[in-house]
Amino acid sequence: MTQFSPLYEGKAKIIYATSDPDILLAEFKDDATAFNAQKRGSIQNKGVMNCAIASHLFQYLAAQGIPNHFIAQVAPNKMHMRRVEIIPLEVVVRNRAAGSLCRQTGLPLGLELNPPLVEFYLKNDDLGDPLLTGDRLRLLQIATDEEVAKIREMALAVNTHLSRFFAECGITLVDFKLEFGRSRSGEILLADEISPDSCRLWNQDESDPEKRILDKDRFRQDLGAIEDAYALVMQRVLAHSVR
Amino acid sequence: MTQFSPLYEGKAKIIYATSDPDILLAEFKDDATAFNAQKRGSIQNKGVMNCAIASHLFQYLAAQGIPNHFIAQVAPNKMHMRRVEIIPLEVVVRNRAAGSLCRQTGLPLGLELNPPLVEFYLKNDDLGDPLLTGDRLRLLQIATDEEVAKIREMALAVNTHLSRFFAECGITLVDFKLEFGRSRSGEILLADEISPDSCRLWNQDESDPEKRILDKDRFRQDLGAIEDAYALVMQRVLAHSVR
Ligand SMILES: Nc1ncnc2c1ncn2[C@@H]1O[C@H](COP(=O)(O)OP(=O)(O)O)[C@@H](O)[C@H]1O
Ligand SMILES: Nc1ncnc2c1ncn2[C@@H]1O[C@H](COP(=O)(O)OP(=O)(O)O)[C@@H](O)[C@H]1O
Ligand SMILES: [Mg+2]
Ligand SMILES: [Mg+2]
Repeated sequence: MTQFSPLYEGKAKIIYATSDPDILLAEFKDDATAFNAQKRGSIQNKGVMNCAIASHLFQYLAAQGIPNHFIAQVAPNKMHMRRVEIIPLEVVVRNRAAGSLCRQTGLPLGLELNPPLVEFYLKNDDLGDPLLTGDRLRLLQIATDEEVAKIREMALAVNTHLSRFFAECGITLVDFKLEFGRSRSGEILLADEISPDSCRLWNQDESDPEKRILDKDRFRQDLGAIEDAYALVMQRVLAHSVR
Repeated sequence: MTQFSPLYEGKAKIIYATSDPDILLAEFKDDATAFNAQKRGSIQNKGVMNCAIASHLFQYLAAQGIPNHFIAQVAPNKMHMRRVEIIPLEVVVRNRAAGSLCRQTGLPLGLELNPPLVEFYLKNDDLGDPLLTGDRLRLLQIATDEEVAKIREMALAVNTHLSRFFAECGITLVDFKLEFGRSRSGEILLADEISPDSCRLWNQDESDPEKRILDKDRFRQDLGAIEDAYALVMQRVLAHSVR
């Protein structure tokens, strides 16, 4: 398939059109950003590792019946995906309190959230990706009530499957961010990526609260050994069957 | 009634115990703060004006059947009130978009919100009074689901009555913040204050977007003539009957 000029360059991926209008190519970059891109850097080999992890997890989720945009991994850091109209929401599922939830509510780090929390943030860098209440989500008319209900249901199903998957890898899935889009026919598909950039992952073999961190929090908090952490996640994820 | 030593000094009021354990005395101060007390100043005569406005509005709301803590105004800047256990929520009702809603969502200033938006913020200066989703409110166990439903219903009823009241004064009630508390018997009472410190009020006689502002936004935005604005609100509010 011919690769065309870039359609869009984001913080973590470059998106290219292809000869098929319904198929896009995502090239995963090593660039890393945090705190709404105020902190910028690079994590060696991240593009390749995140592409491999995301490809594996999307295949696993498809096997569990979660419709998603993944078509095929076509290079170490490149993925073909179905083009969707991205719904500008960052859908966050939390199994334990961490990050902004702790900062904003005072809840202690690691507190188990049962049932898990599903939260919607407006995907808008200029506005700082603000948290949305149900009423604000409705007011902004970003998605229909039916779509929001579907997205919530899919996010919780993704959480059930991924929590089990990561537990089988000896990793605790603390929280993660998903993006969804509408296909040409109006179907809601899971899109974007699932990787240590978009998840909080804690190594169950480590009790030390810094050592256990296997995700972008190592970059946010300058904890070092970031590549090693991503590599460990990749190795364990790829060793798990896609079914 | 004997006045005792201060129980608590807040940003806008000093609260005193009285000889009756169920009655507190609130002394309204001229101190003004904004942006979570990062901006500090003073508005001449504010204590007297806000105490008069709040006393009048609480009497009006009581006449409309809204149970509230007001007992009596006992001095130009002092009010007796029923002691409640304050529920640490700032309950905001919005009839038009303004302030943080515009900053966070990009909605245009003044956009009519129909139905009005009821929002809950955690009353916690250290955490910067964060916006709460329904799930976060439940998670923090600040109030029972039943209490939250009651508070929402009361906030909307207050909005209906106050919007009419202010319209009859030639003033648009853009938004306002309420606090609620539990009486000894567990009844939910409207508490704290209702004043130009806690409301956005626009003069319907002015079309200029700065001149029309009659509330603490004049202080937040350094628009000057703050005392005049508060005095105009007081004069019109006190001229309206309390029924
Ligand atoms: N299947 C898809 N179809 C269309 N756009 C997609 C798809 N999957 C992801 N995207 C979008 O690709 C863009 C590039 O990704 P990324 O570099 O992570 O961007 P951002 O800086 O917005 O996070 C994002 O806007 C993302 O929403
Ligand atoms: N009826 C009441 N019983 C007990 N406390 C009250 C009552 N009404 C208001 N309060 C509380 O009085 C305190 C002082 O008011 P204020 O100066 O506005 O404080 P703050 O700085 O917290 O805004 C606040 O904590 C407020 O919640
Ligand atoms: Mg992204
Ligand atoms: Mg106050």
